[in-house]
Amino acid sequence: EVCFLGDRLLTQKSVMVNGTVFCNKNESGPIFQHYCADNNSDSCQYFKDPSVEARVVKAIPGLASGVFMKNIKSRYTEVNKVIGTTAEGSESRGEILADLTSSFMILLAIYFPSVTGIMAGSNRSGDLADGQKSIPTGTIAACSTTSLVYLSCVLFFAACIEGDVMRDKYGDSIGGALIIGMIAWPHEWVIVIGAFLSCLGAGLQSITGAPRLFQAIAKDNVVPFLRVFSVTRKNGEPLRALLLTAMITEIGILIGNLDHVAPIITMFFLMCYAFVNMACALQTLLQTPNWRPRFKYYHWSMSLLGVALCLVLMFISSWYFALAALAIAFGIYKYIEFKGAENEWGDGIRGLAMSAARYSLLRLQSGPPHTKNWRPQLLVLIKMDEELQPKYSKLVLFASQLKAGKGLVIVNSVLAGKFRDRFPDAQSCKQSLSNLIKTYNVKGFSDVSIASDVSEGLCQIIQNAGLGGLKHNTVLLGWPNDWRHDEDENSYMVFLETVKNVGAAGLALLVPKGIDRFPDPGVKVRGTIDVWWIVHDGGLLMLLPFLLRQERTWKNCKLRIFTVAQTEDNSIQMKKDLQTYLYQLRIEADVDVVEMSTTDISAYTYERTLMMEQRTDLLSKIKQQQEENFGNTLRVPTITLSTVPEEGNDIDHTEINQRSMDKSQFTFTPQDAKALVDKSKKPDKHNVRRMHTAVRLNEHIVEKSREAQLVILNLPAPPKSDSGAESYMEFLEVLTEGLDRVLMVRGTGREVITIYS
Amino acid sequence: EVCFLGDRLLTQKSVMVNGTVFCNKNESGPIFQHYCADNNSDSCQYFKDPSVEARVVKAIPGLASGVFMKNIKSRYTEVNKVIGTTAEGSESRGEILADLTSSFMILLAIYFPSVTGIMAGSNRSGDLADGQKSIPTGTIAACSTTSLVYLSCVLFFAACIEGDVMRDKYGDSIGGALIIGMIAWPHEWVIVIGAFLSCLGAGLQSITGAPRLFQAIAKDNVVPFLRVFSVTRKNGEPLRALLLTAMITEIGILIGNLDHVAPIITMFFLMCYAFVNMACALQTLLQTPNWRPRFKYYHWSMSLLGVALCLVLMFISSWYFALAALAIAFGIYKYIEFKGAENEWGDGIRGLAMSAARYSLLRLQSGPPHTKNWRPQLLVLIKMDEELQPKYSKLVLFASQLKAGKGLVIVNSVLAGKFRDRFPDAQSCKQSLSNLIKTYNVKGFSDVSIASDVSEGLCQIIQNAGLGGLKHNTVLLGWPNDWRHDEDENSYMVFLETVKNVGAAGLALLVPKGIDRFPDPGVKVRGTIDVWWIVHDGGLLMLLPFLLRQERTWKNCKLRIFTVAQTEDNSIQMKKDLQTYLYQLRIEADVDVVEMSTTDISAYTYERTLMMEQRTDLLSKIKQQQEENFGNTLRVPTITLSTVPEEGNDIDHTEINQRSMDKSQFTFTPQDAKALVDKSKKPDKHNVRRMHTAVRLNEHIVEKSREAQLVILNLPAPPKSDSGAESYMEFLEVLTEGLDRVLMVRGTGREVITIYS
Repeated sequence: EVCFLGDRLLTQKSVMVNGTVFCNKNESGPIFQHYCADNNSDSCQYFKDPSVEARVVKAIPGLASGVFMKNIKSRYTEVNKVIGTTAEGSESRGEILADLTSSFMILLAIYFPSVTGIMAGSNRSGDLADGQKSIPTGTIAACSTTSLVYLSCVLFFAACIEGDVMRDKYGDSIGGALIIGMIAWPHEWVIVIGAFLSCLGAGLQSITGAPRLFQAIAKDNVVPFLRVFSVTRKNGEPLRALLLTAMITEIGILIGNLDHVAPIITMFFLMCYAFVNMACALQTLLQTPNWRPRFKYYHWSMSLLGVALCLVLMFISSWYFALAALAIAFGIYKYIEFKGAENEWGDGIRGLAMSAARYSLLRLQSGPPHTKNWRPQLLVLIKMDEELQPKYSKLVLFASQLKAGKGLVIVNSVLAGKFRDRFPDAQSCKQSLSNLIKTYNVKGFSDVSIASDVSEGLCQIIQNAGLGGLKHNTVLLGWPNDWRHDEDENSYMVFLETVKNVGAAGLALLVPKGIDRFPDPGVKVRGTIDVWWIVHDGGLLMLLPFLLRQERTWKNCKLRIFTVAQTEDNSIQMKKDLQTYLYQLRIEADVDVVEMSTTDISAYTYERTLMMEQRTDLLSKIKQQQEENFGNTLRVPTITLSTVPEEGNDIDHTEINQRSMDKSQFTFTPQDAKALVDKSKKPDKHNVRRMHTAVRLNEHIVEKSREAQLVILNLPAPPKSDSGAESYMEFLEVLTEGLDRVLMVRGTGREVITIYS
Repeated sequence: EVCFLGDRLLTQKSVMVNGTVFCNKNESGPIFQHYCADNNSDSCQYFKDPSVEARVVKAIPGLASGVFMKNIKSRYTEVNKVIGTTAEGSESRGEILADLTSSFMILLAIYFPSVTGIMAGSNRSGDLADGQKSIPTGTIAACSTTSLVYLSCVLFFAACIEGDVMRDKYGDSIGGALIIGMIAWPHEWVIVIGAFLSCLGAGLQSITGAPRLFQAIAKDNVVPFLRVFSVTRKNGEPLRALLLTAMITEIGILIGNLDHVAPIITMFFLMCYAFVNMACALQTLLQTPNWRPRFKYYHWSMSLLGVALCLVLMFISSWYFALAALAIAFGIYKYIEFKGAENEWGDGIRGLAMSAARYSLLRLQSGPPHTKNWRPQLLVLIKMDEELQPKYSKLVLFASQLKAGKGLVIVNSVLAGKFRDRFPDAQSCKQSLSNLIKTYNVKGFSDVSIASDVSEGLCQIIQNAGLGGLKHNTVLLGWPNDWRHDEDENSYMVFLETVKNVGAAGLALLVPKGIDRFPDPGVKVRGTIDVWWIVHDGGLLMLLPFLLRQERTWKNCKLRIFTVAQTEDNSIQMKKDLQTYLYQLRIEADVDVVEMSTTDISAYTYERTLMMEQRTDLLSKIKQQQEENFGNTLRVPTITLSTVPEEGNDIDHTEINQRSMDKSQFTFTPQDAKALVDKSKKPDKHNVRRMHTAVRLNEHIVEKSREAQLVILNLPAPPKSDSGAESYMEFLEVLTEGLDRVLMVRGTGREVITIYS
């Protein structure tokens, strides 16, 4: 029996005098003492209100009393209000106050941990004879039983006990007794002892089980910093884990109020459930072949619903705890990923990444990008030396400096040999290439392939590298430095073949010469980048220095653009036009027009040409001899000086001129070179003429750009026939003589730069 | 001058009798008539309240009056309340009511369109001499001027006019006049005429400009259904666009209230700004090389801030309009994308897709996936016929049926020839392959490469296809159907070389035989898929039927698994073990163990072997003759019958046995075949033995699986030497004789299926 004043429940202590309850409004009674001692307060007014009466109510009216209908409506308590009412209460008046503002969500969070034993069950599933079959049935049965028992308890309590008495958490209205004890049979101590034993049992079980689980996790070495907890004592007791568990438990106890601990526990339970559900949904949605749930009624939408419910519950019950919990989970995930722990399990995220990559690539496939979106997608062809190490590793560094960090970089190499024999070599090459890429911090891909013929292999790589929309559009090829001293002609023939193939495939080509002298990583060079814009083949020459200057190494370099004019050209107008063009391109550069006169062939040029011709002659003779020795007459070298090598820029001229007439009014072509060739029809003079152009151009370049940090110029078209190979190489050597770092560029003729942003 | 009753502003009409204002509480006055006609209502009580007095207040007290301080606080009106108060008003009492609930955001939305002329300015930037330079300066100047003028207007109004009078939208308190007109100099008509002219001007300008802009958009043909609006009349007037514009305008007018139209307009303006900003931010963040903003102080964070502000404003001012606007924008985008309009501009989304693809691929790179994540990533090698059309196109269909829709499918082909000559052929092949892929709705990639030698080319493709983490792990190769009738041996030598290369590269291999008889798309087959599990090489044999049955075509097929036991094996125990294993794998299948006895070699086997040997002999003789005729003696065919071809499963046996001992207790190997080989050391008998095994096995398979829709069995290892090529092919033919659809599978020995999910 409890005492109410109006709708305010009073503590037993406050209405009891000498062991007798005085639950009335007599002026001598204890209620009057509490409420109206000063005779004029708010509480006294309440006391004097005639509609407020003191009444003794049965705490447990029983099932038949109809208290159920009274209790079925929701009524939440607010902290420091009298329970069941909205009035400010005071303990000194003997009113029972709520110590927690409650709401549906808070109560749910408190209730939740009591139904979370299901996961604990599946932890022990290893002992089951046939876990796959038992777990679903067992879990569902457990869930329904638990729900039934718990919910019926709730309903029966509601049907038996006065609502406000139930809200009286510490049982003050019934003298500190347990209300559940009062309805227990045969004695109220059953409850106390039962609860005590249950707590003790669960506690003991947890304090022995949890450290073992924790130690097992630590032993898996997935989270490296937990390793200290993996040791056990001689008798198998995980002491350190036990101590940590005890510490965590102690923290829980020190918080001192189950109502405050429960929401935190709820968070972790919910997160655990959410992630289990998410993993299931992910596996199903990604159609992992090894994900074959046996449970017949499984559907991914259920899992997704589970994830959603868990997350919603987490955020509703306490959004800051939820955020913190998610942050912790994310932190652990990133930590594990960072530590690169040998994960013994599959990775759903990997499947996601795969899907994303596939989807993006398919999306990219829909055709070549617009000029506005053009960016160099580099294919770097690297040569391997005898120790299977990359030979000119700075090519990769240069590729990364081209700000291709945001584009694609594929680093590839070819080993000569038979595929089935050299497979292990290729693997080690692949390793050293990927190390190289990591060293220079290039976000790119590397691969090595084996081909019986290196030229053929490079050609295949040029065709096959990349996938879908991620195809290279520019090839970065090292200059064969030792081509003159190489015993076999292979070195420069491979180079030349590749140059031709790249051209045939419609890709742009970059050939850095003197790559070993290119700046080291981290070095900041100061000076100028000089562009010698001789042929307009798509504007790649303009774009490259702009890209280079985005990078730290070349940031402080000034850009200078040189173009070549004949004496009869209006070089002032030309310069002005070029300046306007650059302004519209929004590229800052100094512009200079170099005039080249059609002077006589200098002595030096003659000399060089002669040298080259003699050498070619000599070499072809030696080769002939060698081949005769081997008795192989199939390949008769046709290198004779009477054969005319293709003039470097010839092909481009006509093409570009025609095309650029309607496209752009800015075409700068070495008219002089062309004129020279046209005039002199005598074939034996051709090499001389050619060399003359090279020497003259080189003179100008060296004069202007000797101090430049980088000289960028057009790579002339290679000769169509094989015969001109050597003179072409020599031509390039002469052209770039006396320059430290040269980048030769051959565009595709398609525009890669635009004045529209 | 206006009349207040208390703080309620009254209309001039209600307090005016015969042209005279009676703003007093006399019982005969008009206010009393309105408020207290019935003498006992709420309004009468308000009227009688002594603190409420009628007062005449100056509407425009002027700058010096200090009304500014009174107006500076925000006070929003609520619909149907008396303006400036929270009292319910009634027009019949002459009170001025608010016709709109206002808030900061609503007022902002109404104010916004008046400052949106900036975009209109940039529309006309084509006329500028140097737009790049003028637009930033011009825009900033325009913004600041506009802001200054507008804001000073707001402040001056606040400083001059009584707040409630300003809130009186229709000027009822001053007899319907314009309050701004009252302070205009020299006459109030200045305002009326000015506003009228301004409206007329803006309206005329818009009604002539907008249709032209609209017609231009329609003419661009980006949004195809707008095409009808692209026509103009003879005099260049876009009549249809004009009519549409007029219609839209009419809708605006019919809404009838600027306060309701303004928020809608604001939405579209904000969205326009948001997208412009987003495009800028995207370009910068993706470092598009052709995005080079000239404006020095440009930073992407500003753009992002702009996007955020626009979106926030949109959602704050009206979230449903915002959602609708975004939905419309998204719809238009998708529509344009769907129509695949020839877009003349770059696509920022493409850059995003590129970044996403790159990032995902790099993420995938970190090593081979766990068994749990294994899925077939197919490389389909397709042969092209003379017309450059794919030969066995159903290979692609079969690949798609392997549920590789969620994995990777790369369809590749090799053309024989010189790269530079056949480049156009390759392009047309590429086109037909990608059409094929589209036809079968495979989400995959296709490519064609040219190689001088087809075997070499295929080997290169096997090495080079894929990128980063998206590498194939399984090769799908067609069976060379006509290998016996092909004049040159090329067909099956290429096949055999490729089988060997695939093995060397550590990839799985699938060889469907009778691909032309495989089910057509959309056909649903019923029956069984029979797996003959002879060698355990990673479980691919188990996984494939599971994957196939995920697809509609094979969904209704039942799975049967056959394994081969010797007579001395405990076949009952074997069956039981296998059933348990399958149960743990969660694969539903009938299990059958076939017993093979070591019976004598049947007459048929002898016959077949003899036939094969005779044929091989004959062929090698012919070949020798041919080569002698050509005078080429370099390649002496070493095919003699004394050479022992590699026993099909031999290599696997020992390897697998050793490995699987510790890994898995379930290994099913054709012990009989091995035993046979071990016993008979005589080399000339080897082919006979081999063929015997094949014939016996084939008998069993045909007996059990004649009716099966698909038979899946192990592909034996190819012979190491070239000499056994023909007998190997013959062996396979015998093995699969009498079967309709066969899929031969060669795993890598690495586990691809796991009992753990």
